[in-house]
Amino acid sequence: MGDQDYKLRPAAGNGLMDRRIFLRTGFGMAGGLSLLHAEAAVGARPKWMQAPGRGMNRYGAPSGFEANVGRVGIGSQPGTDGSGASRTPLEHLGGMITPSGLHFERHHSGIPDIDPDQHKLMIHGLVRRPLTFTMEALDRYPMVSRIQFLECSGNSGRLVAPEAPQGTCGELHGLVSASEWTGVPLAALLEEADVKASGKWLLAEGADAAMMSRSIPLEKALDDAIVALYQNGERLRPENGYPIRLFLPGWEGNMSVKWLHRIKVLDRPAMTKDETSKYADLQADGTSLLFTFPMAVKSVITSPSPGLRLLSRGLYQVTGLAWSGAGRIARVEVSADGGASWADAALDDPVLSKNLARFRSAWRWDGQPTTLLSRAVDDTGSVQPTRDAVLADRANGSFYHYNGIQAWRVGENGEVRNVYV
Amino acid sequence: MGDQDYKLRPAAGNGLMDRRIFLRTGFGMAGGLSLLHAEAAVGARPKWMQAPGRGMNRYGAPSGFEANVGRVGIGSQPGTDGSGASRTPLEHLGGMITPSGLHFERHHSGIPDIDPDQHKLMIHGLVRRPLTFTMEALDRYPMVSRIQFLECSGNSGRLVAPEAPQGTCGELHGLVSASEWTGVPLAALLEEADVKASGKWLLAEGADAAMMSRSIPLEKALDDAIVALYQNGERLRPENGYPIRLFLPGWEGNMSVKWLHRIKVLDRPAMTKDETSKYADLQADGTSLLFTFPMAVKSVITSPSPGLRLLSRGLYQVTGLAWSGAGRIARVEVSADGGASWADAALDDPVLSKNLARFRSAWRWDGQPTTLLSRAVDDTGSVQPTRDAVLADRANGSFYHYNGIQAWRVGENGEVRNVYV
Repeated sequence: MGDQDYKLRPAAGNGLMDRRIFLRTGFGMAGGLSLLHAEAAVGARPKWMQAPGRGMNRYGAPSGFEANVGRVGIGSQPGTDGSGASRTPLEHLGGMITPSGLHFERHHSGIPDIDPDQHKLMIHGLVRRPLTFTMEALDRYPMVSRIQFLECSGNSGRLVAPEAPQGTCGELHGLVSASEWTGVPLAALLEEADVKASGKWLLAEGADAAMMSRSIPLEKALDDAIVALYQNGERLRPENGYPIRLFLPGWEGNMSVKWLHRIKVLDRPAMTKDETSKYADLQADGTSLLFTFPMAVKSVITSPSPGLRLLSRGLYQVTGLAWSGAGRIARVEVSADGGASWADAALDDPVLSKNLARFRSAWRWDGQPTTLLSRAVDDTGSVQPTRDAVLADRANGSFYHYNGIQAWRVGENGEVRNVYV
Repeated sequence: MGDQDYKLRPAAGNGLMDRRIFLRTGFGMAGGLSLLHAEAAVGARPKWMQAPGRGMNRYGAPSGFEANVGRVGIGSQPGTDGSGASRTPLEHLGGMITPSGLHFERHHSGIPDIDPDQHKLMIHGLVRRPLTFTMEALDRYPMVSRIQFLECSGNSGRLVAPEAPQGTCGELHGLVSASEWTGVPLAALLEEADVKASGKWLLAEGADAAMMSRSIPLEKALDDAIVALYQNGERLRPENGYPIRLFLPGWEGNMSVKWLHRIKVLDRPAMTKDETSKYADLQADGTSLLFTFPMAVKSVITSPSPGLRLLSRGLYQVTGLAWSGAGRIARVEVSADGGASWADAALDDPVLSKNLARFRSAWRWDGQPTTLLSRAVDDTGSVQPTRDAVLADRANGSFYHYNGIQAWRVGENGEVRNVYV
């Protein structure tokens, strides 16, 4: 059978195929996967070929036929419309970049409408040279760009509930997005301010009405933190911190303080409301775990997923996203038989550190009910745990930093549901 | 002076610094670059901190303070509003991704408003198995993603004029953009159609009223061509071919046929109007060069550039974009003294094949008039040529595939102009 025979052998149970079919041509005919048949030739010209189309515009928008694709799970505190969250509709996306219009949101007092000409960044506290930067001054500094994910530590928190909650992939897991972030290394600004030897932590504060603030170890600030000015090439969007935000790669989302206006260098953490009463992990022994900064290794299958339906048996792409706050995704495995067997998925190039990695498996559905799972491993060797393992050490209801393996149940009718396995 | 002394030594004439300052902390204080001074502490809270901000929404948009950032140089044929082009405002962008709302446009009869449920892709001609794909069928195929540039072969064409044209960087060079493109490898669909041995070329045709069409060698189709369904994570934008387009990495833009509805396998090129009367390069000897597919190695400084102004002497980031249809950018050099000396620029990670590479140099402007240049080299060893070298072999007015070195003249008042050197 030669070097093509991997196409004919299953890579794991229940129809999963070898990932090498993503590396070369030939998944169409080989192995009897073909799902399509010739139809009659295209008939009369559709109306959009019969007259010139619309003109150009200054700033584009999606097709009206995609009007159903928007942020999902928009919810806010009673009496407010901006203190809450919205989620990325992961099930509708196909790459690693999240379009900025669909980036998840988490605000503590709505989205401030900041005039960049009036906004400043102050660096003070345990520094020899307190500094205040206008946006125009920041623009002149050498910058760096990185494509990296941002995940709210509350993402997927509904999965701690005793009964498996039903919702789309975005509704359940959409507090994660990825963008190209461009900005000035925070280390450069701190060096200019000349941090004293006693300076060990930073307080970062936003210019929203909640003055959302977090404490950040100086070590992280000097490592890979940036003061971001651009998102996906253009200036930050208002809901992502316009005109500037802190960006701390791989760490829980709210530490990447939006609308950043103040960094105070301290000798210890500030113990703000946003890192004590919230964003702390209650443990089974009654203690509260503070400062769990990096987001753990995680993955989720975005398609098939609830709300999308398998219409007939045959070839499907099983695809999803995997990420780790510790570094690069090394491997993603997919199971199509509820975890009895696993096959390596293909990963889109490039796989970047602290970014969403897009994984893909080819799968032939035989029309029978089954359960799809994905499991990620990062380059530190951390393996995504089962739901039971995640919950073992936690107090009831403690929902931050949930990263358990997600199981989707495919029914005989092709509908997909969230299940616990 | 130890390992920090590269900060104090110029890397090239007239203030260019060593690119290693992008790799580590410390460009702030070192070498007397500091441009900022402490100001009084932030005063009264601005109005946006005094009341909750606005609520969340389904699909976000840029800040109102960025209303000046839009596509530029929008122009169409007399009597039409959609047969022409718009350009990416390169001078306002900071990364490698182009936000989809600002991707350049080039349409031959406006933007068709295609219903994806009625759109089909037909593959016929020299195949054993003619096929017609619905969008739903294409969705089931295994896909790949790549971040790559698209450039119209007419980009920068105004630079062939005898007098240096004035305009912003986007107006002069903005028919190039980069996106994450996701789709089905064309090779897989062609294999399913089973191309006959006599099949050597494809005719690809769009479902716009102009039925824009190009001939493509089968070899390219089997190499890295995809039928793209997603752009920057979401479904293609209408002006980029919704619901599907061909994407041919590195090749002149109009070959990546938008609104793709038909691929016919042929034994020779179809010689369509869009590859004979247009998109052909008239040579100095009177012959016309057809089928100049790959876009050549090129770079342009996006900031400082015309319309942006240097407000005072001191530290600036000189940044721009470099790309090559032949592969990866290996090196970009910047000159701050009109080409008398050159320094290597830093390149943002990752540098991807057939993608825009963002380059950055740190530069201390002494307030004197000077000329900034950039020069790119790709991994095949091709070096971006001078304007004179580009024009040497061409007929007067032949403007496709212009890739000469761009010179920006910085005046004593900090204003920037296009000049020929």
